[in-house]
Amino acid sequence: MNLDNFSTRLSIALHRVQNPVVVGLDPRVELLPEPIRPQSLEQSEVARSYSEFCRGIIDVVAPLVAAVKPQAAFFEQWGPAGCQALADVIRYARKKGLLVILDAKRNDVGSTAVAYAKAYLGGETGPWQADALTVSPYLGDDSLQPFVDAATESGSGIFVLVKTSNPGGRMFQDLVADGRPVYRHVAEHVARLAEETADKSGYGAVGAVVGATYPEELAELRAIMSRAWLLVPGYGSQGGTAADIAISFDSQGLGAIVNSSRAIIFAHARPEYRDAYGDQRWQAAVEAAACDMIDEIHSVM
Amino acid sequence: MNLDNFSTRLSIALHRVQNPVVVGLDPRVELLPEPIRPQSLEQSEVARSYSEFCRGIIDVVAPLVAAVKPQAAFFEQWGPAGCQALADVIRYARKKGLLVILDAKRNDVGSTAVAYAKAYLGGETGPWQADALTVSPYLGDDSLQPFVDAATESGSGIFVLVKTSNPGGRMFQDLVADGRPVYRHVAEHVARLAEETADKSGYGAVGAVVGATYPEELAELRAIMSRAWLLVPGYGSQGGTAADIAISFDSQGLGAIVNSSRAIIFAHARPEYRDAYGDQRWQAAVEAAACDMIDEIHSVM
Repeated sequence: MNLDNFSTRLSIALHRVQNPVVVGLDPRVELLPEPIRPQSLEQSEVARSYSEFCRGIIDVVAPLVAAVKPQAAFFEQWGPAGCQALADVIRYARKKGLLVILDAKRNDVGSTAVAYAKAYLGGETGPWQADALTVSPYLGDDSLQPFVDAATESGSGIFVLVKTSNPGGRMFQDLVADGRPVYRHVAEHVARLAEETADKSGYGAVGAVVGATYPEELAELRAIMSRAWLLVPGYGSQGGTAADIAISFDSQGLGAIVNSSRAIIFAHARPEYRDAYGDQRWQAAVEAAACDMIDEIHSVM
Repeated sequence: MNLDNFSTRLSIALHRVQNPVVVGLDPRVELLPEPIRPQSLEQSEVARSYSEFCRGIIDVVAPLVAAVKPQAAFFEQWGPAGCQALADVIRYARKKGLLVILDAKRNDVGSTAVAYAKAYLGGETGPWQADALTVSPYLGDDSLQPFVDAATESGSGIFVLVKTSNPGGRMFQDLVADGRPVYRHVAEHVARLAEETADKSGYGAVGAVVGATYPEELAELRAIMSRAWLLVPGYGSQGGTAADIAISFDSQGLGAIVNSSRAIIFAHARPEYRDAYGDQRWQAAVEAAACDMIDEIHSVM
């Protein structure tokens, strides 16, 4: 039983590790280090490699960070076997004391949203047992509500897409209606939901995804959604820097978590780490890259 | 090998069955007819029941309609076993000659969108083998492009959420920017993508989801997206009527497909069919409800 809400559990975990880094688990078969490459491209073989790879990352980062963020797409790409690997990875991460934010960007209308919410935010009796889930806002308030209800009931959380890190995100998110962009309308709704679900941590069960690649909007959105955890992707490989995200944190260093995926999990292939570690010592490379990112962010907090 | 694109295959299938009905496969454990209720709520037991239930529906509707639309959420709700059931159901439906539109409302940025596209639109060598996938537009053009590319390459299709059938859909979709609602901006982009991918059927690989519950917008959107297949949900249980959707079709009766889920698959429990069929003859009730819906739509075409 989790006696605390997601928000409080996240706050406690962040106090413990003293950094806001989230490690994104985005396995890709073509980038795996040599010792755990699959024997073939059979779905079950690749799924087994993904599970082993992610467990290896979790072993290294569990003492360092508060949370991991598995990306559902990369697991679903390998069919039902990949989905089983995702379930195994979530369970393993939780067993190691990490919070798990499942990045699946789900949503649908009415009773279908309820099914997604039960699937992913069902708490310790649910089939997937994520601590939090990313959710898409396009379908509006009544599509978000089942996730808010499930999160409140099971002590889990959601992160609603507000301003995404990709260049094309501007196409609809930046359309201006009633004097402000669409993403800001979404942010205002998230701000209300965060306020309504805020607990003793000062933050709510409803957070927002805001890309590190748009620092000005990050500042604006931080101010609007004062009770919402920000999940900030786009750090590192996508171009966001430590200086860009400094604005996200409150005076205690809370309020935002910063994801990096490729730059950490495939560090063995990066020029900075390749010679020192390489494929054989890929876990040491993961550890080094995670520590370096933590140091970078500490320099601006 | 599918020698034809999704659009052409759909046109041929619609010519064969002479109706635009899509049967939504939205299994729910609490609504299953008594003969196939699971022995327990173990994930594997429920997943087995879902697979049996959906295969039973497919057996009945395969001669009647062109396509089925499994809703991923209801399968994911039962964990990896549910995902395996979904894969089995997709395969079974295709074996029976039905097109399969997977309703999963996926999307993400860049390379993650590529992973979803490979997962679901990989054609006959892919892990899930859907003929088409529903996709969310919030992340913009560069998030949609990998799906367009994969669909073009594998002869599959996508349906982009434009105007959803739920009341809350208005919240962000109806915000007015540059003199027209957000959903219309999305529709204009879909129209371009449909035009670019149009084949000999006259329609493209990129279609749109437009709810039956907004008949005026349906007419407007039909006109804007002249080369896009419309997937029209919300018929029946959600309140859309045959008269509401008549505008969706071109002069040949093509251009739109109309989904009904609950009203068909759980017909055994509806007042109109319960006494004649009931739980034991649930497949006959499915058949009767599908035929009645086909007749209703014929009356306005």
